[in-house]
Amino acid sequence: MSESDLVTFGETMLRLSPPDQERLEDAREFEVRAGGAESNVAIAAQRLGTPATWMSKVPETPLGRRTVGELRQHGIDTEVVWSHRGRQGTYYLERAGEPRGTNVIYDRENTAVSTAKARELDLDTIKDARVFFTTGITPALSSTLRDTTASLLKAAREGGTTTAFDFNYRRKLWSPEEAEETMTHLFPGIDVLVIAARDARTVLGFEGDPRQLAHKLGSQYEFETVVVTRGSEGAIGWHDSVVHEQPAYDTDTVSRIGTGDAFTGAFIARRLEGDDVPTALEYAAATAALKRTIPGDVAQVTEEEVEAVVREGGEALSR
Amino acid sequence: MSESDLVTFGETMLRLSPPDQERLEDAREFEVRAGGAESNVAIAAQRLGTPATWMSKVPETPLGRRTVGELRQHGIDTEVVWSHRGRQGTYYLERAGEPRGTNVIYDRENTAVSTAKARELDLDTIKDARVFFTTGITPALSSTLRDTTASLLKAAREGGTTTAFDFNYRRKLWSPEEAEETMTHLFPGIDVLVIAARDARTVLGFEGDPRQLAHKLGSQYEFETVVVTRGSEGAIGWHDSVVHEQPAYDTDTVSRIGTGDAFTGAFIARRLEGDDVPTALEYAAATAALKRTIPGDVAQVTEEEVEAVVREGGEALSR
Amino acid sequence: MSESDLVTFGETMLRLSPPDQERLEDAREFEVRAGGAESNVAIAAQRLGTPATWMSKVPETPLGRRTVGELRQHGIDTEVVWSHRGRQGTYYLERAGEPRGTNVIYDRENTAVSTAKARELDLDTIKDARVFFTTGITPALSSTLRDTTASLLKAAREGGTTTAFDFNYRRKLWSPEEAEETMTHLFPGIDVLVIAARDARTVLGFEGDPRQLAHKLGSQYEFETVVVTRGSEGAIGWHDSVVHEQPAYDTDTVSRIGTGDAFTGAFIARRLEGDDVPTALEYAAATAALKRTIPGDVAQVTEEEVEAVVREGGEALSR
Amino acid sequence: MSESDLVTFGETMLRLSPPDQERLEDAREFEVRAGGAESNVAIAAQRLGTPATWMSKVPETPLGRRTVGELRQHGIDTEVVWSHRGRQGTYYLERAGEPRGTNVIYDRENTAVSTAKARELDLDTIKDARVFFTTGITPALSSTLRDTTASLLKAAREGGTTTAFDFNYRRKLWSPEEAEETMTHLFPGIDVLVIAARDARTVLGFEGDPRQLAHKLGSQYEFETVVVTRGSEGAIGWHDSVVHEQPAYDTDTVSRIGTGDAFTGAFIARRLEGDDVPTALEYAAATAALKRTIPGDVAQVTEEEVEAVVREGGEALSR
Amino acid sequence: MSESDLVTFGETMLRLSPPDQERLEDAREFEVRAGGAESNVAIAAQRLGTPATWMSKVPETPLGRRTVGELRQHGIDTEVVWSHRGRQGTYYLERAGEPRGTNVIYDRENTAVSTAKARELDLDTIKDARVFFTTGITPALSSTLRDTTASLLKAAREGGTTTAFDFNYRRKLWSPEEAEETMTHLFPGIDVLVIAARDARTVLGFEGDPRQLAHKLGSQYEFETVVVTRGSEGAIGWHDSVVHEQPAYDTDTVSRIGTGDAFTGAFIARRLEGDDVPTALEYAAATAALKRTIPGDVAQVTEEEVEAVVREGGEALSR
Amino acid sequence: MSESDLVTFGETMLRLSPPDQERLEDAREFEVRAGGAESNVAIAAQRLGTPATWMSKVPETPLGRRTVGELRQHGIDTEVVWSHRGRQGTYYLERAGEPRGTNVIYDRENTAVSTAKARELDLDTIKDARVFFTTGITPALSSTLRDTTASLLKAAREGGTTTAFDFNYRRKLWSPEEAEETMTHLFPGIDVLVIAARDARTVLGFEGDPRQLAHKLGSQYEFETVVVTRGSEGAIGWHDSVVHEQPAYDTDTVSRIGTGDAFTGAFIARRLEGDDVPTALEYAAATAALKRTIPGDVAQVTEEEVEAVVREGGEALSR
Repeated sequence: MSESDLVTFGETMLRLSPPDQERLEDAREFEVRAGGAESNVAIAAQRLGTPATWMSKVPETPLGRRTVGELRQHGIDTEVVWSHRGRQGTYYLERAGEPRGTNVIYDRENTAVSTAKARELDLDTIKDARVFFTTGITPALSSTLRDTTASLLKAAREGGTTTAFDFNYRRKLWSPEEAEETMTHLFPGIDVLVIAARDARTVLGFEGDPRQLAHKLGSQYEFETVVVTRGSEGAIGWHDSVVHEQPAYDTDTVSRIGTGDAFTGAFIARRLEGDDVPTALEYAAATAALKRTIPGDVAQVTEEEVEAVVREGGEALSR
Repeated sequence: MSESDLVTFGETMLRLSPPDQERLEDAREFEVRAGGAESNVAIAAQRLGTPATWMSKVPETPLGRRTVGELRQHGIDTEVVWSHRGRQGTYYLERAGEPRGTNVIYDRENTAVSTAKARELDLDTIKDARVFFTTGITPALSSTLRDTTASLLKAAREGGTTTAFDFNYRRKLWSPEEAEETMTHLFPGIDVLVIAARDARTVLGFEGDPRQLAHKLGSQYEFETVVVTRGSEGAIGWHDSVVHEQPAYDTDTVSRIGTGDAFTGAFIARRLEGDDVPTALEYAAATAALKRTIPGDVAQVTEEEVEAVVREGGEALSR
Repeated sequence: MSESDLVTFGETMLRLSPPDQERLEDAREFEVRAGGAESNVAIAAQRLGTPATWMSKVPETPLGRRTVGELRQHGIDTEVVWSHRGRQGTYYLERAGEPRGTNVIYDRENTAVSTAKARELDLDTIKDARVFFTTGITPALSSTLRDTTASLLKAAREGGTTTAFDFNYRRKLWSPEEAEETMTHLFPGIDVLVIAARDARTVLGFEGDPRQLAHKLGSQYEFETVVVTRGSEGAIGWHDSVVHEQPAYDTDTVSRIGTGDAFTGAFIARRLEGDDVPTALEYAAATAALKRTIPGDVAQVTEEEVEAVVREGGEALSR
Repeated sequence: MSESDLVTFGETMLRLSPPDQERLEDAREFEVRAGGAESNVAIAAQRLGTPATWMSKVPETPLGRRTVGELRQHGIDTEVVWSHRGRQGTYYLERAGEPRGTNVIYDRENTAVSTAKARELDLDTIKDARVFFTTGITPALSSTLRDTTASLLKAAREGGTTTAFDFNYRRKLWSPEEAEETMTHLFPGIDVLVIAARDARTVLGFEGDPRQLAHKLGSQYEFETVVVTRGSEGAIGWHDSVVHEQPAYDTDTVSRIGTGDAFTGAFIARRLEGDDVPTALEYAAATAALKRTIPGDVAQVTEEEVEAVVREGGEALSR
Repeated sequence: MSESDLVTFGETMLRLSPPDQERLEDAREFEVRAGGAESNVAIAAQRLGTPATWMSKVPETPLGRRTVGELRQHGIDTEVVWSHRGRQGTYYLERAGEPRGTNVIYDRENTAVSTAKARELDLDTIKDARVFFTTGITPALSSTLRDTTASLLKAAREGGTTTAFDFNYRRKLWSPEEAEETMTHLFPGIDVLVIAARDARTVLGFEGDPRQLAHKLGSQYEFETVVVTRGSEGAIGWHDSVVHEQPAYDTDTVSRIGTGDAFTGAFIARRLEGDDVPTALEYAAATAALKRTIPGDVAQVTEEEVEAVVREGGEALSR
Repeated sequence: MSESDLVTFGETMLRLSPPDQERLEDAREFEVRAGGAESNVAIAAQRLGTPATWMSKVPETPLGRRTVGELRQHGIDTEVVWSHRGRQGTYYLERAGEPRGTNVIYDRENTAVSTAKARELDLDTIKDARVFFTTGITPALSSTLRDTTASLLKAAREGGTTTAFDFNYRRKLWSPEEAEETMTHLFPGIDVLVIAARDARTVLGFEGDPRQLAHKLGSQYEFETVVVTRGSEGAIGWHDSVVHEQPAYDTDTVSRIGTGDAFTGAFIARRLEGDDVPTALEYAAATAALKRTIPGDVAQVTEEEVEAVVREGGEALSR
């Protein structure tokens, strides 16, 4: 059993992508990297000083071990159920500028993680943590994981562990209707919700500007904190009925993937350090900005770098 | 004998280029790709649903076979005279931003294709096609090919095959005077002419804005259709004495090479599908836009992608 | 409908392998190539002058198109049912010397091809061919494919097409018992059987030296021709109750994968050219030897190269 | 404080090597890997099931973090004093066949680790372990590390931790005389000594065949266990005055570097599992054999693979 | 002894950088290139037609020979004292967009060149040259090099050789106070000073706009020529009490490193060709612009390219 | 004019080769290196301490400059006539084991060097050298070069420069009859002849064992020295009517290309140093052995490495 302040649970896939902006259809080689929302969040938090553990079920194969090894390289602990059944999820990433646009092809059916049951997992690790985190991707992967997600959130509550959740709607995994039904059932077990303004509108049917979305969500579901993200336009934090606005930094972007996870991981880490919501949002935005300069899914940043962006960030604010 | 709606004839070279923006003078490795206007056009048309065949004369060497193999990979058929004499043409491409500028060094003298005579080629394939296409590069390569080009256009006419021709003036191959003389002799055998506004002015001596150029060319030489291209400013289509204007799409460009060929191939394919000229121009511009997001010479696109650009293209139009 | 002398049917996977002898567990990049027994056989035959078509069901995705494109590059025709359901099969290859040994991890469940039914496929292409070929891998992939294999062999017989079959037992796909039952039911529809001596013993339960195996198999099941392969010790051909022995050539091996397919493709091609069995075996062994000097699954050889090996092969024979 | 059965202490360098067998003098790129005897041993033990921690002092720079991250990827824990002074050690590796021979250039002066004092390190981690391991490279790096090595061995003894030591004489670091004097002073604090027969002769001045060397060393210095290694000729284990001989396995070698460390790590792991010396030697030889098939310094093996070599190893024995 | 118009003296390091914008912390490979201000200047001058020699002290190792070989590749001569002591300096370059920013980590302590004494060097080569050049980096590397720099400038004066000096303050090597004291002592031996406006202000304490800085510097220290550089805003030349302003060209930049050296090398070359200061500044700006389109430290340009930029540069001028 | 002890004249090509043992027909990238017999010989001599200059005519293009730059990197001087006409010669190298065998495709017609006339070249450089060297490849390239070769040999004689010549028959360039006629006309101008035993037999029609060949050649044409090479079986030196036999060293070979040139360059260098023929042959064999461990055409060796092979070579001798 590991002892981390933050425990996350979810799937991490192998990401296969042709070099540069080559087409999958023409590829002779793939770059291989591990990527998944929950491990990305754990790593971002760890890099900002919060001991973090990623929990999952992984096939006992070279591919599974490879995935776990890469996560450990970034400094987090891993608490893994090794499985002799089920695939390692993969996804194919084809990068492109407009009007082609970056494209993702999932190959994540029948994975080991999709069979993970709460009773297989070390619930004490969750109960002993200060924050437990997962995303809306997890319950979208299988009906088993729908139950597991609910059980883990319940275990966290029992242990007095704060629960944080990134809504992360993926239309390639399920319909808005399915997502809404599943997620709103989970909401009562969640303390901190991160959600894209777009998802709040198209999946949950809320209306209004992002400030209104945050307020409506927070009030209706009695979250402790709500963060509404708006991509390059920044984020809104709602806490104690007060709304805080955080613009995004300008960046020379090399990879957008993982930006939201970097934001969320840093936000959680700084809240755990005792920062108030506006300060945590500022560090989250700075971490996200640095992430955008880094290839791959993962926010390989240092606290010093994040602090430098926050410190010198005045003129760097987009507006 | 293959049975394609579109048959193209011309040279396809091996393109050797250092990675990224390295200098040729410092290169330790070259990327290798096949590229040629006529095969690019065939591939673009094929990708949009028009069965296409590229016809040429190629050395019976690993380099020649490599060139043909790459073209087949993209889905077209090839109708090749294998030659035991003559080189495989190559060109060296050095990519650079301004003020250095991308540079091309041809090494295409004494090639197998430069000796291709009409009697070696399968004229029935041309006669049975719906469109025959070549470019102004072909007659520039040798006096033999000047005669061959004329003979192929003649055979196409005899078979009732529409003839399409991209003017494609290359100053590294011949002088404007030579080009003008040769090309204007070919014009009576051509139904559809594609020409850059710049070439219409500097080689053929026409004056006026692109709309005027299209109209003058069409009227004077009695083409069925004229397309005047203006790079990032779009294109003009002239047909039945009516002029149609097609703006270019905004793109995040990774490679400009082959953009014109993608445009032309898509235009031909859509005309063969029965589209009117304005619609065909729109698909042509969308295909060209996608091409600019793809490394290499070739428009590796799908019909769905092109349609998506056309459909969502309203706001993407440059102006 | 294509018109080839040889038609093969089966699955072609994408092969993902780390460079050199790196471990999958440590890989940062994968080389990507297409590989499958039936397309390998088609390519080997085509390279020796026999027009060949590979038939299959493939997902309508970039990965599926990539697989088909690579096969076309090697010169064969493809007759593909494009599917909107089912995965593209992949396999991971980890190369290693002894005592680690090269290892293969299949990820080929729920593929498009595993749902291919005979009524979806163009049976006329098979009926119009001179030889139809598949392997024991195909019926091992799904119960649907068990039926399909039987139906295709039946269609071939109806069309007067010779049927050739490589036993190719794969223990990672099914048990010896399942394989024996399925295969022996298929045997009456097969004219030419290729089988490893090891499989004849451990799956079919035959005993004796390879000459005896060939004779027993041929007599018991009334095959027209039986080829028993013995890896680096060569092969035995049985035809008209006569046994012919063909040693293997010594080689500087870079990749053993695809050697058997190269052998079989060349054997079929030369038999179609009218060679007697001993001569066809000699060309088959020479093609297999060349394949072992070539990275990847595919016998990228020329007739001239094969003939040179046969011609100069006296002293190159092992033993 | 981590809780591992095995704790090792020493320097891990970044290894920079041109691809394949290119010369350093001509290199345009270097492969980058972490490598060091003590971390190699920890990883080999961990891979065989023994929780292991590597302890060191590392510069707080991207290079230092990179080194530690790579070690964590292989599954071990790291207990690191981060330093704001001192370099990250590097070494340049040029691979070559005979008669050129592989060459190593150290660039490891003024490193962070060379300033590591015992009082900076977490001695409790050592005291709570079951085995503490370091090598003769450590005291060769600086006079500070000579003292530190002695202090760590003393702390281990105080904690009841078994001490294991690989003699590992490096002539590029110090003279035989310096090595002999330093090492023999350390011997009384060491339980398990691993030493190359060559070093026993040329540095310590012992004579005789390897069995005699093992016996003389064990008797004279009252070690609990002595292992005398002989490269491709295997190893000798001496324990309770009994000598055990272990031949090496035949291998297709891609990299000899790290073979001895793989051997030692596996030996320690199996002894901790309760194996007797001959059995532990057999697993050690099998792990070393697998290592030789793997590029890089590190024995990325699994227990299953090692067991398979031991199980099937009868005929694989060299002799 | 070589006979060059320009002789430069200083350190050239090996530059190790991960591909693209990858983090050092995650790197598996480094690109390797030679780079140093004084060799960069020599190469830029040579490329513009001025025979140039780089003089230094280099370790007699593969790394040292590699560095010298790469410089020779670019056409200059090298006059090297081969040393059996001292390291080859290296630096690690991590490229990044904002807000991360490109970062450099020096590993250049205890190098061979830091021990170079004037009496080891071939002073006649300097005395016979027309210009001797070094930078403020050289005296920052060691106290020995402080003396050596002074001695070489003195030798140049004795030989009637013009002395040129780029101030090049590096805060990672010394403090502004140290730099100021050392440099102002060297000033009386210098004819041509190149200095960044920023350094003139923060190290030397001058105030005013760049024109004023140039004038104050020139007057106070009696330089023959002063060039004040302002990065993307161009440069100011002061000569005979007249100030000339040279804007920078707009560029598609791939690497800023070495831009200043390209500028200085071209300026020296054109002055040696007899150009007046404004013309030399124009060529210098054009060379710097081309450099920014070239990866690596070195201005691999041709005279023709530089002339083309100057000739067509009217509209390319920034501002 | 450069001042070298050894001057060589000939063509150096760009060598384009797919990685590892990939087929040209499947290549996506080529490695690029410079290679030519005469520059290889100059480099080998230079590496053993003999100042050497390579003389040629080269196109004034990036490809030409690239070739010359790479040669300079290896330390030799270059004396080049830059040409605005004629191609840069290239050759394609496909590496393969048996029975495929390494294959070379020349693309060296119409090169700049093929037009080189003696009056364009700096004959004084030859006259002032101690040895002038070229090979039988040079006169095979064009009739112009036949004359030029004769003129250069004549100029060397006039200057008192020893002439050395490697017969180097290339059947892809001319017939044995043409070669014999041309070469035997050149023989009277040659002092030192290097020739493969195979060429002496099949082109010149000599018979006997290699010792006899050396003696017959030396006596009949009155050479000062004859070296007959026999590949992996070593070489025979004939001088003053005495025959010396030099076996070849055993090697782990990565590239055979350039082995003969390494041998010849070292032989010349050691003769210039004053070694007798047997000693020079020994160094030549050692240099050739080291070359075989190095990728590429060029003997990137050091004197120390060669001496180490000679010193420790007793047991390394083949036989």
